[in-house]
Amino acid sequence: MSTGAMKQDPTVLSARLQRAAETAASADIDALLISPGSDLGYLIGVDGESFERLSCLVLPAAGSAAPPVLVVPKLEELGYAEVPAGELGMEMATWVDGQDPHRMVADLLSRDGGSPSRVAVADAMPALHTLPLRSALPDAEQVLAGSVLRELRMRKDAAEIQALRDAGAAIDRVHARMSEFLRVGRTEAEVGADISRAIVEEGHTAAEFVIVGSGPNGASPHHALSERVIHEGDVVVVDIGGPIPGGYNSDCTRTYSLGEPRESDVRETYGVLQAAQRAAVEAVRPGATPSEVDAAAREPIARAGFGDYFVHRTGHGIGLDVHEEPYIMGGNEISLEPGMAFSIEPGIYQQGHWGARIEDIVVVTEQGVESVNNQPHELVVLPT
Amino acid sequence: MSTGAMKQDPTVLSARLQRAAETAASADIDALLISPGSDLGYLIGVDGESFERLSCLVLPAAGSAAPPVLVVPKLEELGYAEVPAGELGMEMATWVDGQDPHRMVADLLSRDGGSPSRVAVADAMPALHTLPLRSALPDAEQVLAGSVLRELRMRKDAAEIQALRDAGAAIDRVHARMSEFLRVGRTEAEVGADISRAIVEEGHTAAEFVIVGSGPNGASPHHALSERVIHEGDVVVVDIGGPIPGGYNSDCTRTYSLGEPRESDVRETYGVLQAAQRAAVEAVRPGATPSEVDAAAREPIARAGFGDYFVHRTGHGIGLDVHEEPYIMGGNEISLEPGMAFSIEPGIYQQGHWGARIEDIVVVTEQGVESVNNQPHELVVLPT
Repeated sequence: MSTGAMKQDPTVLSARLQRAAETAASADIDALLISPGSDLGYLIGVDGESFERLSCLVLPAAGSAAPPVLVVPKLEELGYAEVPAGELGMEMATWVDGQDPHRMVADLLSRDGGSPSRVAVADAMPALHTLPLRSALPDAEQVLAGSVLRELRMRKDAAEIQALRDAGAAIDRVHARMSEFLRVGRTEAEVGADISRAIVEEGHTAAEFVIVGSGPNGASPHHALSERVIHEGDVVVVDIGGPIPGGYNSDCTRTYSLGEPRESDVRETYGVLQAAQRAAVEAVRPGATPSEVDAAAREPIARAGFGDYFVHRTGHGIGLDVHEEPYIMGGNEISLEPGMAFSIEPGIYQQGHWGARIEDIVVVTEQGVESVNNQPHELVVLPT
Repeated sequence: MSTGAMKQDPTVLSARLQRAAETAASADIDALLISPGSDLGYLIGVDGESFERLSCLVLPAAGSAAPPVLVVPKLEELGYAEVPAGELGMEMATWVDGQDPHRMVADLLSRDGGSPSRVAVADAMPALHTLPLRSALPDAEQVLAGSVLRELRMRKDAAEIQALRDAGAAIDRVHARMSEFLRVGRTEAEVGADISRAIVEEGHTAAEFVIVGSGPNGASPHHALSERVIHEGDVVVVDIGGPIPGGYNSDCTRTYSLGEPRESDVRETYGVLQAAQRAAVEAVRPGATPSEVDAAAREPIARAGFGDYFVHRTGHGIGLDVHEEPYIMGGNEISLEPGMAFSIEPGIYQQGHWGARIEDIVVVTEQGVESVNNQPHELVVLPT
């Protein structure tokens, strides 16, 4: 179910709608068509939830005389009661079973006489609505709204950054309690169930993801949970997070050892990883590029001969989505700006043996960088 | 997160893939492109989870020499480890960041020389992938795969029906415990939190939806939860459900009264609703149409003068999705067949005063109908 977006000051939402309309205009897009999801939550303060029945914000580009219109099924109107439509200068248009909501959207876009030549649909819009909207607007090229909205969502305002700090503090509290959950003789699944409860206890609305990768499982970056029993000497990667009320997400990884690590190469290799993660965080500042930050993480790992064992990008943006722009990877040459928030999470994966990853969410500041996660970065040795 | 689909006998999945390929061929569709979601879970036994990175089953229509291919990000390959690719005659094609997975799909569809003129994309496929796939296959018309897959998914096999029975029994156990949660002086939100826990305790993997509509809130069919405090004499609509392991869903509504109902018209009106729900269930049999079943529910309600207070369709299909085909509404003239499963949930909503709804999931049998929900249909009077 939707976690809902952050209850927003209408002036903030109004400014976002205006910037979105202006960005659309500058991209020669006639209108944004935003279905339920984090993009809708960002723009109007409510994510929405419907799938089969079309809900869609019709946001004309700047320069159009038409107001934004929120098209929603009559049955689901109540779910949008918190939207300050009046203060946003937004009209509500409801429809009932039997009406054609895609036709309604097309008519709204043509009511000032013209017909749109280019509309942007939300990246998350299901084909169930993307295709009928194309049929209803046969002369309009469909493009992705993500290219417009990422320009806005990438740049967090003060309230969004505070929400990420709150989320970071909440997940830090879970990691601080890890010795309650992560013990020799328990399965990853048992540990994961306890962590899920703790994630909610510490202030999240849901445990969105819980990775407990013990021993060889730690060498699979996307391993989640298994029935593997945790043994003394295991190195365990714990990557956890979820949304707090308002919808902003946490995401933090620490690596634990049950007693002294069994494998002899862990201490030295982990030191390389820790240095790489620190170097990447220190490379974050206004004007730096994600590509440079990615390189800063890779260089010490490659120099130590582990380059082939770091198999993923260095990080991802985070906010109302766990994964959003900017992605911290080679080839991303945008210039980092204050307010951008993303993970720094290098890993070293010894296939078949063990793996380690350290992940913090950081925010670009005027001065450089702020981390919203503040648990120690050392390999955490837990009692057995 | 995905609930995963039911661990399936490979021969069952193989038969589904073949029927899907045949149904596609008969609809002049060259291939099905199925992204993560319940359609994928239905066909290969794993829902998948990726959003930003394309995962896609490329299923050529019957008659093509090409095998099905599952395109997945290398990083997420592990999540598909349970797919019996070999037994399904399916190839796996992994890709890494930097490669163009949409191009990969296009090349797969062209490798036997021809180029497709019509491809069907999963209803749930996000525009993030639907639009790039269109650009990669500029000569192929995109249509919705739902029209193909609903023909299969609407007709449940024995294992699917058993899963719906198990889900029904699990949610019945929650309703049987309602007096533990629903008490005078508590808010809907407090009651809902307890119900969510009980839904998981009784065997669901998640509490997908929890509606507690007390007093006037009961008259809003899609009301979820609020801070309203429940009072003596309130009538309360409780509509709850979620997936059990394997991904099949429960969905059951009962209406409760805290002590004797305050409003004088409740008892008589509820009797009309109860008769209407029974009449609709009794109208279910092979050969009947959803339209006829819908009419059977409406007729007694309309005759009693409450026609305008029954503001939604009579029911929806259910399975791996909470809402799927067949929809039980006027205008749906398909012929019901054994194995079809759907809700029968008429409601009467006295705006501003109170509402009531009774919902069971029923399955069409050779003989007629079976209900997977078996809690009493009477207005349940709880101690205050």
